[in-house]
Amino acid sequence: MLRNTRSFSQIPCALIALIVLNASPAEATDILVSTQAEYKDAVKAASPGDKIVLANGEWRDFEILFTGEGTADAPITLTAEMKGEVFITGQSNLRLAGKHLVVSGLVFRDGYSPTNTVISFRRTKGDLAHHSRVTEVVIDHFNNPERYETDFWVMIYGKHNRFDHNHLEGKSNQGVTLAVRLDSEESRENHHQIDYNYFGPRPVLGSNGGETLRIGTSHYSLSDSLTTVENNYFDRCNGEVEIISSKSGRNTFRGNLFFESRGTLTLRHGNNNVIENNVFLGNRVDHTGGIRVINKGQIVRNNYMYALTGHRFGGALVIMNGVPNSPINRYHQVDNALIENNSVIDSDHIELAAGADSERSAPPINSVFRANLVYNADGSENVAVHDDISGLAFRDNSMHEKIELAKADNGLLYPVDPDLAGVGAKKGLKVLQRSETGPSWYPKPGYADRFDTGATHEVGPGLDTLSEAVKASKSGDIVVLAKGDYLVSRTIKVDRPVTVRGKGKVRIEFERTALFEIADGGSLKLDGVMISGNSAPDSAGNTAIRTSRYSMLGNYALVVENSVIEDLDTNHSFNFFTVAKHTFADRIEIRDSVVRNVTGAVLALNRELDDLGIYNAEYITIVGSQFENIGGAVADIYRGGTDESTFGPHFLLSESAVVATGKDKRNKSRATIRLHGVQATDIHGNEFVDSSPIRITETVGEPVTRLKDNRYEGTVEPIIDTSLRP
Amino acid sequence: MLRNTRSFSQIPCALIALIVLNASPAEATDILVSTQAEYKDAVKAASPGDKIVLANGEWRDFEILFTGEGTADAPITLTAEMKGEVFITGQSNLRLAGKHLVVSGLVFRDGYSPTNTVISFRRTKGDLAHHSRVTEVVIDHFNNPERYETDFWVMIYGKHNRFDHNHLEGKSNQGVTLAVRLDSEESRENHHQIDYNYFGPRPVLGSNGGETLRIGTSHYSLSDSLTTVENNYFDRCNGEVEIISSKSGRNTFRGNLFFESRGTLTLRHGNNNVIENNVFLGNRVDHTGGIRVINKGQIVRNNYMYALTGHRFGGALVIMNGVPNSPINRYHQVDNALIENNSVIDSDHIELAAGADSERSAPPINSVFRANLVYNADGSENVAVHDDISGLAFRDNSMHEKIELAKADNGLLYPVDPDLAGVGAKKGLKVLQRSETGPSWYPKPGYADRFDTGATHEVGPGLDTLSEAVKASKSGDIVVLAKGDYLVSRTIKVDRPVTVRGKGKVRIEFERTALFEIADGGSLKLDGVMISGNSAPDSAGNTAIRTSRYSMLGNYALVVENSVIEDLDTNHSFNFFTVAKHTFADRIEIRDSVVRNVTGAVLALNRELDDLGIYNAEYITIVGSQFENIGGAVADIYRGGTDESTFGPHFLLSESAVVATGKDKRNKSRATIRLHGVQATDIHGNEFVDSSPIRITETVGEPVTRLKDNRYEGTVEPIIDTSLRP
Repeated sequence: MLRNTRSFSQIPCALIALIVLNASPAEATDILVSTQAEYKDAVKAASPGDKIVLANGEWRDFEILFTGEGTADAPITLTAEMKGEVFITGQSNLRLAGKHLVVSGLVFRDGYSPTNTVISFRRTKGDLAHHSRVTEVVIDHFNNPERYETDFWVMIYGKHNRFDHNHLEGKSNQGVTLAVRLDSEESRENHHQIDYNYFGPRPVLGSNGGETLRIGTSHYSLSDSLTTVENNYFDRCNGEVEIISSKSGRNTFRGNLFFESRGTLTLRHGNNNVIENNVFLGNRVDHTGGIRVINKGQIVRNNYMYALTGHRFGGALVIMNGVPNSPINRYHQVDNALIENNSVIDSDHIELAAGADSERSAPPINSVFRANLVYNADGSENVAVHDDISGLAFRDNSMHEKIELAKADNGLLYPVDPDLAGVGAKKGLKVLQRSETGPSWYPKPGYADRFDTGATHEVGPGLDTLSEAVKASKSGDIVVLAKGDYLVSRTIKVDRPVTVRGKGKVRIEFERTALFEIADGGSLKLDGVMISGNSAPDSAGNTAIRTSRYSMLGNYALVVENSVIEDLDTNHSFNFFTVAKHTFADRIEIRDSVVRNVTGAVLALNRELDDLGIYNAEYITIVGSQFENIGGAVADIYRGGTDESTFGPHFLLSESAVVATGKDKRNKSRATIRLHGVQATDIHGNEFVDSSPIRITETVGEPVTRLKDNRYEGTVEPIIDTSLRP
Repeated sequence: MLRNTRSFSQIPCALIALIVLNASPAEATDILVSTQAEYKDAVKAASPGDKIVLANGEWRDFEILFTGEGTADAPITLTAEMKGEVFITGQSNLRLAGKHLVVSGLVFRDGYSPTNTVISFRRTKGDLAHHSRVTEVVIDHFNNPERYETDFWVMIYGKHNRFDHNHLEGKSNQGVTLAVRLDSEESRENHHQIDYNYFGPRPVLGSNGGETLRIGTSHYSLSDSLTTVENNYFDRCNGEVEIISSKSGRNTFRGNLFFESRGTLTLRHGNNNVIENNVFLGNRVDHTGGIRVINKGQIVRNNYMYALTGHRFGGALVIMNGVPNSPINRYHQVDNALIENNSVIDSDHIELAAGADSERSAPPINSVFRANLVYNADGSENVAVHDDISGLAFRDNSMHEKIELAKADNGLLYPVDPDLAGVGAKKGLKVLQRSETGPSWYPKPGYADRFDTGATHEVGPGLDTLSEAVKASKSGDIVVLAKGDYLVSRTIKVDRPVTVRGKGKVRIEFERTALFEIADGGSLKLDGVMISGNSAPDSAGNTAIRTSRYSMLGNYALVVENSVIEDLDTNHSFNFFTVAKHTFADRIEIRDSVVRNVTGAVLALNRELDDLGIYNAEYITIVGSQFENIGGAVADIYRGGTDESTFGPHFLLSESAVVATGKDKRNKSRATIRLHGVQATDIHGNEFVDSSPIRITETVGEPVTRLKDNRYEGTVEPIIDTSLRP
């Protein structure tokens, strides 16, 4: 009997209701299912060549278990009635187990996995998928709302699996976006193929665990993975210092494009990997990097790095020092590396023997650095040598020569001089286009400007006129306040970017414990307003502005300009801005403003006290402002932990005055500025009068602390504790 | 024209649709409204005698502004179509402003006020309500979900207002339940009447701000309020140390009944108050108290205190020392007090000259203590004298005499001996019945037992069988696990009381960052199970059990019995139990259990680091258990701040062994037990081997720290820091 003419009597009861969609010539059946029960029955009944088709529409709370044994010629397929029209939402995930399975056309959005993975190539430990493929699947912001509830979007186990043409955008909680696992023999030497995927923007996480792709873990890193990662587009993958973390042997990274992505492709553990024909376009974005080399037998060739700003472990090209007899989870010495025909153009840092210190004391050996092109149009040098590099043979490179470059058809720069034809990346290097990756039917994201892109709303003074106007505003709108007094009886929730701008003398008072709450998705800009705490409750712990009290996935911005904040003093511990644990600001800026008479802190960014390497804001900038009679600190920034996975926090204070500040008895740190674990500090051109000292504790990585041209009157000089530096 | 025959042409447009319900003989109109717009129009049009009737059903997000000028004979009324059938829900509140307004019959539930008050006797500062009444209104758990977002359920401003026969149950967030405000001349000498209200259970808050009734604030406390509080029932009002905080002069507290309520009626500020004919029934519940006297001219007579256990400021009868020339917000000396004809029976503590210290050095003067009956059936003494009490004249009391008592018709105990007829409370003392208070149509709450009151579900081992069983369980159910291995791939949310009990050898492993989450409304009891961290993620900061990461209004319980917890060590900082900020446990108990190989802490109750007097658990009890190789502390309990508003936390550790514990480098306190601000500590009969020391920092009130019969081997003796004691 042909399987496409199965009699109903042979089909389990529940399948009777299913519609046989399509009789393929090769004896296979297409089964359209519309409920989870129908799906389960269809999976149970599926034979090689069958195609289970999910009906268009929303499938909510659907934990899809897809098991079966297809054949190379006749895989079992799970797909969408129409690709891009099947939405898996709510508490959902997908597990594949068996052989020759294919999944395509699904969109995961508006929800998250109740387990630790969205798409897993196994049912459970020991029941894996092999020779299977996930293609043209979308996972779009399918995030656990808890920023630090770790999960993975894709975990690939087994062997000979392919993950291609998928679209993974906006992973915002902790955990690697896509991981290849080698935790059992069955998953090693796996020959997986990861290709033509679109890895969309991943925001700065503010902690370890923001990698976009990881292959292996340190534990099994001496095993070979034999995974190929090619022709993938990494679009603003900014999670942490490692965009890709290769932790196994004999992988190939080829033809990928890294667009404005902070961090590097890192050969963290494992040997004999090949990195070739990749293009890194930094476009001068902060912390954009290239390739970091560790371990044995790595080949890095024919890659193109352009306009990368990253330094130290995040440089355009980084060759690390190792630890002698390194434990498996530390740094193995670079040995027998071949670095050839790479172009590093208009980039800030090449680091050789990077990370050299008393522990990492083994410099690269038996290695070759040849035919590379290093060129900066502005003539700047960019190579830093941190230890003995006699084990690195330099040949035929063009480094910092004054040469002429011209753009080729592929859009890349090459030397005009034909004598240099063999130096740097090859002419034929293909530059992957974004449109070649991911499913063609799913749109890729643009750039969003946050503030001042919407409509303007004019508002007059009175009770709750401000709160009503903000409530009615849309993303990017500007609420313009006419001259007068504004009383606010409720906390104003800001869950989209909004600007509040004063026109003339505008005075705002508020009756709740907070005036503004920046909720998930929100950002706030204040311009030209005066905020007074006079009407705030007579209870401890008020704050003029706070974040949501809960985890926020969206990174927000807070900007205060030309404003006056005063009399936050109805009771003790009254802050100007208070963040909650597990919230993260891309930037916080105070410019040309005055803050006076505050019992608490101005910026309390000190909620991640668990020392897990988490912090609350990436860039904190205070310029041209005055602070007077602040009981707590002007800024209290805490980044605990010792991992080196993040670039921030960054702190800048300049051209400002700090007077009679930091002296409240409840200010436990006794500091006017307290920075713990900040990685880039720049305090210059300020004056500090009759205030507690600046206190800085350096902890992580190689913090850069710059204090210059500050005046201290009646104020102890800054106290910098370097005892916790590694 | 008679007003009850208004022609439609004179009625605003929107009112046309309204139905004229009832033509009263006195020219008044009943107007039934069904929408907020209709309500607004009706209020605008209302004249004396009119009655605005809200249609039965739910009114969501309704901020009711009720203004008008009624007359004594013809008030303007806002009421329900049927009392108890009109529900005000969502973001709602009520403001009254004007004269002779009456509100009745509404039920506020399933929501909270967006402003700082649910029912306010003013529209805004300067626009108050006078001669107005709120009666038979219910506010039931109408709580801001943020435990420490302060708000008030009722704020009475103005003069001659009455608040009677209302039902206020379950205020669980911070803020006084009902406050009388004296912040303007218009609100002083107010002659308010607060009577026949039912104040239902208010759970322990775990911070200041849990008073049920407050009259005035220290600022205006030398003004007279002339408020009468009579015949109200206070049922388990356990918010904080003050059930009632009288902070003004010439108030009368009469005929109220305090049932099993923790704390006291406190004459905190203000003079010449009368407290008479009240009944306090403690029934030996912890921290039940009576009356606390401070200031001048206070009369305390004919009150009955029974079976009260409270001590210090929470005793059955407390007469405080004052501060010489006290600032307005400290303690004024007791002067000219009359304490007569009170009965204090089977109660633990009468405190005289309480709080005496270097600051509070002024003992009571010109005062009389007469005809009081103090009797303990067990013969125990209960009077503590803390300073010179020669200013307190004792006359005609019966104190600790061996006499016979008998129960009278009112249920109270009186001396049988007729010679003692004039001693203690009067025979005719009326004992208020609960049923006399609140609206008759709204049910009053019973007692709920938490655990083991429901059905039993038998469950077998496997993947997620445990999580499915808990998910399917109802409040009070017991999930019984058969012998075997349980793997849990998701965090199990416990939002009702559930017991998980092992039958035979039961081993549970879990794959997420937490096995159980106690969510709002939940409580968890584990009995006879083994939990291992072996399958937990290799990331820092896991926990076997945690609370919701969000504010919890409901106080929970966690009980662990006869269980083994082990190998919580896949990475650093792995706790057994982790709480979130703004969550609160009534009790946490570990009994007859073993905990071993944990990189973090066993009980991490240290999230309220803002020093606002907030803490995370009331009773922490560990008995008969063993702890071995715990990196963090067995218990890390933090209660910062210096206010004296709470009784807890309480910590008991007995008959337990602690071995090789508290030594992880990330254990910042370097303690095996760390107690900061714990008010009652009892550590006895334990042994500590090769562990970090116990570290105790005493801070608040008069902490009672008892360490006895402990053995320390290879462990430094406990370190007790008393330098922060007041």
